[in-house]
Amino acid sequence: MTLIDRCRRGEVDPIVKEAAAKENMSAGDLARRVAEGKAVIPRNRARSFKAEAIGEGLRVKINANIGTSSLDSSLKNEIEKLHCAVRYGAHSVMDLSTGADHREVLARVLEESPVMIGTVPLYAAASGGAKFDRDSLFRQIEAQAKAGVDFMTLHCGLTKSALEQYDPSQRVTGIVSRGGALLARYMKTNGCENPLYEEFDWLLDIARTYEITLSLGDGLRPGAGADSLDTLQLSELCILGSLVRRAREAGVQVMVEGPGHVPMNEIGAQIALQKKICDGAPFYVLGPLVTDSVPGYDHIAAAIGGAIAAWHGADFLCYVTPAEHLTLPDLEDVREGVIASVIAARAAEVARGYPAAISRDRRISEARKAFDWETIFSLACDPDGARAKRKKTDSAQMCTMCGELCAMRH
Amino acid sequence: MTLIDRCRRGEVDPIVKEAAAKENMSAGDLARRVAEGKAVIPRNRARSFKAEAIGEGLRVKINANIGTSSLDSSLKNEIEKLHCAVRYGAHSVMDLSTGADHREVLARVLEESPVMIGTVPLYAAASGGAKFDRDSLFRQIEAQAKAGVDFMTLHCGLTKSALEQYDPSQRVTGIVSRGGALLARYMKTNGCENPLYEEFDWLLDIARTYEITLSLGDGLRPGAGADSLDTLQLSELCILGSLVRRAREAGVQVMVEGPGHVPMNEIGAQIALQKKICDGAPFYVLGPLVTDSVPGYDHIAAAIGGAIAAWHGADFLCYVTPAEHLTLPDLEDVREGVIASVIAARAAEVARGYPAAISRDRRISEARKAFDWETIFSLACDPDGARAKRKKTDSAQMCTMCGELCAMRH
Repeated sequence: MTLIDRCRRGEVDPIVKEAAAKENMSAGDLARRVAEGKAVIPRNRARSFKAEAIGEGLRVKINANIGTSSLDSSLKNEIEKLHCAVRYGAHSVMDLSTGADHREVLARVLEESPVMIGTVPLYAAASGGAKFDRDSLFRQIEAQAKAGVDFMTLHCGLTKSALEQYDPSQRVTGIVSRGGALLARYMKTNGCENPLYEEFDWLLDIARTYEITLSLGDGLRPGAGADSLDTLQLSELCILGSLVRRAREAGVQVMVEGPGHVPMNEIGAQIALQKKICDGAPFYVLGPLVTDSVPGYDHIAAAIGGAIAAWHGADFLCYVTPAEHLTLPDLEDVREGVIASVIAARAAEVARGYPAAISRDRRISEARKAFDWETIFSLACDPDGARAKRKKTDSAQMCTMCGELCAMRH
Repeated sequence: MTLIDRCRRGEVDPIVKEAAAKENMSAGDLARRVAEGKAVIPRNRARSFKAEAIGEGLRVKINANIGTSSLDSSLKNEIEKLHCAVRYGAHSVMDLSTGADHREVLARVLEESPVMIGTVPLYAAASGGAKFDRDSLFRQIEAQAKAGVDFMTLHCGLTKSALEQYDPSQRVTGIVSRGGALLARYMKTNGCENPLYEEFDWLLDIARTYEITLSLGDGLRPGAGADSLDTLQLSELCILGSLVRRAREAGVQVMVEGPGHVPMNEIGAQIALQKKICDGAPFYVLGPLVTDSVPGYDHIAAAIGGAIAAWHGADFLCYVTPAEHLTLPDLEDVREGVIASVIAARAAEVARGYPAAISRDRRISEARKAFDWETIFSLACDPDGARAKRKKTDSAQMCTMCGELCAMRH
């Protein structure tokens, strides 16, 4: 029996209780959402961290990506990034290691992580330029499931038919999803269907066995604002909607990934479409970036997009770091990326009218009026950072911004 | 004759031509907007920098605040901040000096600035704890007008009647505008009306004489999301609307300032209200911050709010730096604050459908596809910053984010 099966039978699972306790919601209410597929609680049967739910009416969740590559491999660095991400508020970490050491890194990440861990098994299957095929890919998926991974990004919606109809001249940046690009090349070379689509039932079996939450990847997502909401993206979204229904029927938890690069005026439509076509499945967005022209500051472009997306109903924000589009993120990039996502999530929770978020903002505002700096720091998204900036200032009764002319003192 | 007078007579002023050349707009079209009060082109008769227009259908403009205080005074630092702000994209700088050297600083800022300069004359009038009165305040206004200031924030809408009706218990943070708080104290102590309201015609005379653009300050603006759109804010906005009409009748350019602290879901209403009540006057927003709980990162909260506000029609964004609510901004804070505002402006221009902004995003996306790093850097909001981050990377054919698995190469 999977978590969905138990929720459908009306059982209130300890995992559901634990996750509901973190929300302004009863366990029964959360169990109903899990049963309906409107919320997921990713946790592999083999793992035992404190569960978090992702979905409708819940706090906005944040994911941070870490992982080694063939160009930069240090287990120690990645473990530091894991703990840094969690410390600053990530609810989830994806290990996207593609270095030769990917198995070792994942094992260690799973061992150390107090939060859910996701992967893209295709990366490991193709690491070091390995020529993956259907069987090696599924072996990788099963191995990672066995190792304890809680959720997996799988680009199941990229079909042979969509690729055949794809005219590269219609798009500015083509296929930018790494997983999507790898699969497309494999399918073209072998003239075959996407194994993750063709063998979706096999995936569902593995997911049921290990209690893996599927995160249906958007392999054809737009990689530029200009490509947002194009027919290629929409055709894949429709396939993902049908796969959501199949996963739910099989009692497998499923969420759906989305772009990427979306102008602000299209974010509302992106969310409404995904929620409609995927019948309210939790939506996991990558940013989105609201402009393409700010390399070095993509975490800010993503905070803008993520805040608007989450306000409109996106449930899960994948962070973007200042290193995006330029280089591999270092520890400081991870910190800045997580904080930018936390800001987006807090803003969205206030806009959604969540009592806890509104109360936090109110309490910090009252503390401002009272010059109660300790309360201000304790409620800040980065207490130590705020304290360090404040240290430069002399007087307890004002910030130097206004000096003697402080409005709060009148 | 003022610029509005000339525009109303159908003259195409050289200033209008110059400003229109920077927009996707004819000089005649811009002149019409200036005549109607939907756009302003702040430039003191005594100055000669390249004019920029602010208002309806124009590129989103950005202001950076600088200035000495009684706690931290260094002319050299403030001049460095001026040049830094302009370098990273500020269209305007406000010198908010309140240190003993405020006159000297302003003179030097006006001499060195290639962009429009704004002030809040009340700050200088009250600097060093000076007991200003009606006459000393107007002397300061006239002195700054004579010195060459292009636009002035004047809190004309704070009335005796509003203060009498104000119940402090209705608000979390009370009056947070420095200018508003100073005036409120003066009015209370002296049992008098706000001189900037009572003597508005005197202000208009000075503005006509020196071609000063009035920026009607929101002395009662909310200082917390909880206080957004409250009756106090709205009552002041209604007064500002009536003053906008009086300024236009007098041929004086005028814009209106707005909050401050606004949850995302109220930003659209804030803009719609201001545009309606102030008959389309250019709207100058301070942020707004979409959450109160991120001290140290308020530039990101402001980038979210500013992007949404500008998308909905705000015309002029006052930057917020990472130092906001904590300490005086240093040079690096100024840089980060301006860049965050530029990101908001770029995102808003894309969402508004501005051809130049969309084209820039498209070109940088095409450059990404082509690994044309030089074009990417040249279009970035911070070319040197992007280049420096990229330097860490080995290969010209990929960013290390994806290493060998780069999607763009497939």
